[in-house]
Amino acid sequence: MQNWINNKDDSDNIVLSSRIRLARSLREIPFPNRLSDEQGLQVVKSVEDAFYTNEETKNKFSSKYLWLSSESENSSFLEKHLISSNLINNHKKAAFILDKDETISIMINEEDHVRLQCINAGFNLDETYSIANNIDDVLESNLEFAFDERFGYLTACPTNLGTGLRASVMIHLPALSMNNQMSQVLNALTQVGMTIRGLYGEGSTALSNLYQISNQITLGISELDILSNLQAVVSQVINQENLSRAQLMKNYKYELQDKIYRSLGILKTAVILPYKECLKLLSNVRMGVEMGIIKEIDKSILNSLIVNSKSIAIEKYYENNMSDKHIDVKRAEFVREKLK
Amino acid sequence: MQNWINNKDDSDNIVLSSRIRLARSLREIPFPNRLSDEQGLQVVKSVEDAFYTNEETKNKFSSKYLWLSSESENSSFLEKHLISSNLINNHKKAAFILDKDETISIMINEEDHVRLQCINAGFNLDETYSIANNIDDVLESNLEFAFDERFGYLTACPTNLGTGLRASVMIHLPALSMNNQMSQVLNALTQVGMTIRGLYGEGSTALSNLYQISNQITLGISELDILSNLQAVVSQVINQENLSRAQLMKNYKYELQDKIYRSLGILKTAVILPYKECLKLLSNVRMGVEMGIIKEIDKSILNSLIVNSKSIAIEKYYENNMSDKHIDVKRAEFVREKLK
Repeated sequence: MQNWINNKDDSDNIVLSSRIRLARSLREIPFPNRLSDEQGLQVVKSVEDAFYTNEETKNKFSSKYLWLSSESENSSFLEKHLISSNLINNHKKAAFILDKDETISIMINEEDHVRLQCINAGFNLDETYSIANNIDDVLESNLEFAFDERFGYLTACPTNLGTGLRASVMIHLPALSMNNQMSQVLNALTQVGMTIRGLYGEGSTALSNLYQISNQITLGISELDILSNLQAVVSQVINQENLSRAQLMKNYKYELQDKIYRSLGILKTAVILPYKECLKLLSNVRMGVEMGIIKEIDKSILNSLIVNSKSIAIEKYYENNMSDKHIDVKRAEFVREKLK
Repeated sequence: MQNWINNKDDSDNIVLSSRIRLARSLREIPFPNRLSDEQGLQVVKSVEDAFYTNEETKNKFSSKYLWLSSESENSSFLEKHLISSNLINNHKKAAFILDKDETISIMINEEDHVRLQCINAGFNLDETYSIANNIDDVLESNLEFAFDERFGYLTACPTNLGTGLRASVMIHLPALSMNNQMSQVLNALTQVGMTIRGLYGEGSTALSNLYQISNQITLGISELDILSNLQAVVSQVINQENLSRAQLMKNYKYELQDKIYRSLGILKTAVILPYKECLKLLSNVRMGVEMGIIKEIDKSILNSLIVNSKSIAIEKYYENNMSDKHIDVKRAEFVREKLK
């Protein structure tokens, strides 16, 4: 697997990353929200024992205990989608096992006892699922998961019942947004049982033009069907986005180039840069790179800027407790430096 | 004298150019608007004969006959403030004598028979006047100007009666504009007998932040008093502008730098660039250069962009009869090229 942020591969233009998440619960142990902190720590121990069974996993992975790490460390893992806010809420009894490349994260005592997650660069659902499945097998050989012959895997929330599988892709859809076609896409996706969400919740969506498309249904359908359905749907969205881009380029060539190049110019020169504006400009520049209009910028830099120019990341990089304006100044400095 | 557009001298930061204009009419010959084209051509001949009396003037100056030159050539001299629209209106009988550096222009058959004009770089009213005065002496030694012992020089319009002298400076006042102090400045200048106008009439003023301050009164006051009054007033405006800049820098350091650097970023990257936006951005960048915030840009490039990025100049440089949008695209290309 390849960390999506550092990905330099140009083949998957529109899909930034593919993600597989499996929800598993331990048999005859109350769900995490019913566990005392002490019981929670026992669960952490059990999962670790089940996972660290050979030298390879011991070398490539390490455990992070949320009760030991600072709020800003936890937030920075959250920004990178390596853990969830649910896990942070349970920080007194929550931990996660992370690989060195930051592509695999096994959350312990999130909503379920085990939430295994693999994030891969590009549009690679099958490969990503196969890796997640292997890790799931390792865990299952040493742990007893709650499983029902009729329903499948039992989870804390019924929306995950069955396969416990949530597959998703992060996709960049600026042209569909510019052409006001996103609500259409959203309706179509909902009708075929898919969900579409923003990168960091609703607010940031329209700015970054980054969306997560994932399967809604986990029950009464096989893992392979979930994957192939999502694959088909995403391929269609990619086609629509490419069509929209071609139309824009045909009808508004200069306007589009103007938007893209100005965005790069502003990112390279701004002295005060609010995050929302930064996301919007990064999206424009990314579109330029994806369309081959801008050639000198590496997409991995744009990926890292999306993640690392959030206020909390900027404070972590420079200093804590800055004023909002000071953060915007430091963000501008950070972005200028990275795009030099 | 130094052509203000090419001026690389950094000493006069805020004043771009100083201009002296002398209005003179020939005795016992009707004012130009009462002349037939044929009579007009005789006036052109007389002024040329009076001026080209030695090898030096013959080598350094040449005559331009408006009835021979194209509309776009005439417009381009207008853009550079070397001739007036009045002269163009009289194009069938109008001419002007121009030096190689384009600092001295002797208009023939404008409102008056002779309108002598010297434009010098920077804040140099005395030197500029002294050169204009010398040329006036040469002309006067060979021509009979209409002169009245009581009033002074007689001119077609009474506003020029007396000295026939209009002295003006072109000055860049972005900070006073940003601080909404321009109406105050305007009132104060009017009260002391000065006029303030925009670079190309009212519309462009607020965008370029370039103003022309000149004496209103020409009658009952000596040439030297006109000059020293204007000098004193302009010095005061310079002080106010510098004060405003210092205040901005103190209270809005990052905002100011942001505005200045973003403007440069946009000028360097835009693909569609309307003239009004271009003027606004050039003013911001000029302010940055004048304040020492931007060091890598030469002011002479900014001067030339103000003049040469007007639509008519862009059409002349690339091709005629482009659509407005195409001009904006070519302007952007021109500006990017110059700022490389």
